[in-house]
Amino acid sequence: MSHPLFEKHKAQLDQAAQALATRGYWSPYNEMPSPKVYGEAAAEAGKQAFQGYLGKTFELDQPGQTGVQAGERSPYGVDLNVSYPVCDPEALVQAALKALPAWGQLGAEGRTGILMESLQRLNQRSFEIGHAVMMTTGQGWMMAFQAGGPHAQDRGLEAVACAWREQAAIPREAIWEKPQGKNAPLRMQKHFEIVGRGVALVIGCGTFPTWNTYPGVFAALATGNPVIVKPHSNAILPAAITVAVIRRVLAENGIDPNVITLAVTPQRSATQLLATHKDVKSVDFTGSNHFGNWLIENCKQAQVYAELAGVNNVVIESTDAYRAMLKNLAFTLSLYSGQMCTTTQAIIVPAGGIDTDEGHKSFDEVAADLGAAITAFVSDPKVAHAVLGAIQSEDTVRRVDESHRLADVVLASQKLINPEFPDAQVRTPTLLKCDARDEKAYMEERFGPISFVVRVADAQAAMALSERIVQDHGALTAGIYSTRPEVVDAMVRATWRSKVALSINLTGSIFVNQSAAFSDYHGTGGNPSANASYSDSAFVANRFRVVQRRFHI
Amino acid sequence: MSHPLFEKHKAQLDQAAQALATRGYWSPYNEMPSPKVYGEAAAEAGKQAFQGYLGKTFELDQPGQTGVQAGERSPYGVDLNVSYPVCDPEALVQAALKALPAWGQLGAEGRTGILMESLQRLNQRSFEIGHAVMMTTGQGWMMAFQAGGPHAQDRGLEAVACAWREQAAIPREAIWEKPQGKNAPLRMQKHFEIVGRGVALVIGCGTFPTWNTYPGVFAALATGNPVIVKPHSNAILPAAITVAVIRRVLAENGIDPNVITLAVTPQRSATQLLATHKDVKSVDFTGSNHFGNWLIENCKQAQVYAELAGVNNVVIESTDAYRAMLKNLAFTLSLYSGQMCTTTQAIIVPAGGIDTDEGHKSFDEVAADLGAAITAFVSDPKVAHAVLGAIQSEDTVRRVDESHRLADVVLASQKLINPEFPDAQVRTPTLLKCDARDEKAYMEERFGPISFVVRVADAQAAMALSERIVQDHGALTAGIYSTRPEVVDAMVRATWRSKVALSINLTGSIFVNQSAAFSDYHGTGGNPSANASYSDSAFVANRFRVVQRRFHI
Repeated sequence: MSHPLFEKHKAQLDQAAQALATRGYWSPYNEMPSPKVYGEAAAEAGKQAFQGYLGKTFELDQPGQTGVQAGERSPYGVDLNVSYPVCDPEALVQAALKALPAWGQLGAEGRTGILMESLQRLNQRSFEIGHAVMMTTGQGWMMAFQAGGPHAQDRGLEAVACAWREQAAIPREAIWEKPQGKNAPLRMQKHFEIVGRGVALVIGCGTFPTWNTYPGVFAALATGNPVIVKPHSNAILPAAITVAVIRRVLAENGIDPNVITLAVTPQRSATQLLATHKDVKSVDFTGSNHFGNWLIENCKQAQVYAELAGVNNVVIESTDAYRAMLKNLAFTLSLYSGQMCTTTQAIIVPAGGIDTDEGHKSFDEVAADLGAAITAFVSDPKVAHAVLGAIQSEDTVRRVDESHRLADVVLASQKLINPEFPDAQVRTPTLLKCDARDEKAYMEERFGPISFVVRVADAQAAMALSERIVQDHGALTAGIYSTRPEVVDAMVRATWRSKVALSINLTGSIFVNQSAAFSDYHGTGGNPSANASYSDSAFVANRFRVVQRRFHI
Repeated sequence: MSHPLFEKHKAQLDQAAQALATRGYWSPYNEMPSPKVYGEAAAEAGKQAFQGYLGKTFELDQPGQTGVQAGERSPYGVDLNVSYPVCDPEALVQAALKALPAWGQLGAEGRTGILMESLQRLNQRSFEIGHAVMMTTGQGWMMAFQAGGPHAQDRGLEAVACAWREQAAIPREAIWEKPQGKNAPLRMQKHFEIVGRGVALVIGCGTFPTWNTYPGVFAALATGNPVIVKPHSNAILPAAITVAVIRRVLAENGIDPNVITLAVTPQRSATQLLATHKDVKSVDFTGSNHFGNWLIENCKQAQVYAELAGVNNVVIESTDAYRAMLKNLAFTLSLYSGQMCTTTQAIIVPAGGIDTDEGHKSFDEVAADLGAAITAFVSDPKVAHAVLGAIQSEDTVRRVDESHRLADVVLASQKLINPEFPDAQVRTPTLLKCDARDEKAYMEERFGPISFVVRVADAQAAMALSERIVQDHGALTAGIYSTRPEVVDAMVRATWRSKVALSINLTGSIFVNQSAAFSDYHGTGGNPSANASYSDSAFVANRFRVVQRRFHI
């Protein structure tokens, strides 16, 4: 009775469920792009596969095709020139509706098996996807491989495992027998059918086209909903490969491949039409507040899971590892040129300075030393290019180039030339400093490598400011550096109120902007930066409904 | 370490969790108002306790009291004259916020223990609550005792058990150890704190002041949120007793009793102020579409769990138990004078009539025979009064008295005199018939004992109409009578699309309007009649968030 792909992947599913229950380190997809793991030929084959797409039309065999669209601009200045099928949104919705019943009736086991098989196939294509992510987003190679490949797959599997747990808790049927004293009991048979809410729309972002998309895609699919993926117009290729892989696995298993389709839409209006379509019952979104809030306001017919902007922040009260702290922060601010939704923007420091293992440091010293740590970190061009990558959008380039107007410049951004990609837009981080009163400068998201050292009266004020920032403007990450347990404890309590994940005294090889599936919740869903979390029960439980039937026996 | 009340109730919690996982019959609270179960003195003591409230001010010792409000009008015509403290809404919110941190830090075990203790105390006061429910809602005594007491307590415990399951799945802490090849592993300690979203508001209805309120109250409390209960202005007493009982258990355990308060508000504007208060993060509501949709539109800061109006319906295609079917439907339409959110309103019958074990019956015969079955059922005044109860609101009285204008009258409603309560508003059900085209008559909720036999072309059209009604106007219940498996199967599939619970061929002592906790989901949350279900994971999982912290070890 059980689906063969469910049986095939059952042992790994059990491990995933166990990982969710214990939240220690676990990942089934190796993050090292190593021939020992992925095979001797994998790296070259992946590169070839990626290059094979360039200058061609990506074939998906989807319904309602009306033309093609090209136009991804590589932040590395590479000519991609891939075209994608443009399909009539209504045709995609109708195709999804047609595919829905069989996908639902396959049951949670069958869906879980097919999705785990799909993730395994995606994992085998991590090099190809890594190149696609790198060239469309501007990420450095290692990040593109890891975050675009295995880490995204981890988040996908996490969503599948989470959805499985919730669905497995519902019995398929029950005998209900109510005693009636001396009389015969009342007896009924009941069936509980898990049904998806309807068509799901998943809208991707330009910086993490797989990592931020897989949770919604796999959560929606696992719970019985056909999915339409609307990628960012500049990061279509990773999404297209993903959709093609899943469509293939579906077709191989006799399932209508239109359970998942790619919506490449030249106009935002087409996306708006999809998002407000009466049959679209959920929308997953990562991106700007502007469009995200539009979705929340206008998609009355759908559940909206949105990750929006925020102002991530770190409070520095004191440290017993000053150099290590600065190095850790310098890496955080440099990684992918600060184009992560988890990158710190505001570094809050008391006006009186901080106690450290190298003596007391004034506010200005802390700012200057952090600037120097960044400079040191990006001084080796090889390291710099590997870590910084390239700037994804012209808007971000402009923000960086104009950032000196916002506050006092501690460290100016520099334009670097990447010898391998001479047309790449590369910028080192800019570090500014300002007073807490200068809210106009730092109290909104400045996406990209732009950070502020913010002067506050004292530690108390620092934590109060952090709490207010999170509550009013949202944050996916917060950090605290302090040697005083009572300060750390106060910061912990502040994050319980403002609902943000806290990293404490990071001085080693873990960074506040990193989030590991099966252990770290990405977003709490409790502050304005995101109304959902990867992946908790709430992220999956409302994507399906239980429809029961009952009769006498 | 564990809370003593958690230990005390642990065995029952395990049973509840097991019941949720198997969904067979289970209830810890006996539904029979019997001296053997509740004690020889319980019935009299409960009545005395109820009578002790009459003509007095209900004491709750809440903050911000500005006056008292009286004015519940008993549908039985009994003079109640209980006054309730009116408290400044802002003071209630501030008191809740003050109580929040300690309630959160008590942890899931402590909260679960305290709430299970509260439910046990409420169970011991089922007679008192039964009288309060009967006299404020107009329910007959047996229903008031059962639905107001043990069945409501079942739904409360179900929510607690469901919330426990979701919270228990989250480890309090974890060691995260990531291998680093030949180097020492990266090691971090992580803590996962469950925090409630904030203050919860639970708005009750006038007909089921405990049954429809306990799920939200107990789900919100269990997940760490202080609760403000805003009862319907005509059904305050059952809510006030409930709040007093829980406040007592809280205080006995050293917890700020303002974890739960009662908001008696003379004006709707005060309720609106509460519902849109920035610190109110969830609203549970049962009632009209008018106010429910206002809440959904306006409470942007809160999760809204709403049960609204619907048009419950039954399709009759054929039957092998004609008399039993009619009797079953007659009871359904009569119970509490159709003032249940689950009562059937539209009975859809093919124009060509139906095949039965008593031969073919024309459409008009089915309508007439159902009318006769109702007449027979209410012909014994003792049965009639016990089952019908009294009409809760003047609006419903008016709707019944004017219902003959809506369609052809099959059976006119009759005004009965209840000898025990001569001032009670008692009405027998009215049965109308019309064509499917007469949508204005039957295609909106006509709350009360008003039903329509609706003529459709054939069985196919009957099921299509049922599906459309559910999709466009919502329904908590649907039924099908058919001897043909392919018809039943088609109806089952229709309910998967429209997302409504289906009862098949009910001819015995189970009725389509009954819903048993731990087995039946009340509402699917997937059609316009309700956006949530008592109680699935989605009903509890988004009421709390997980805030993590991590540090090197």
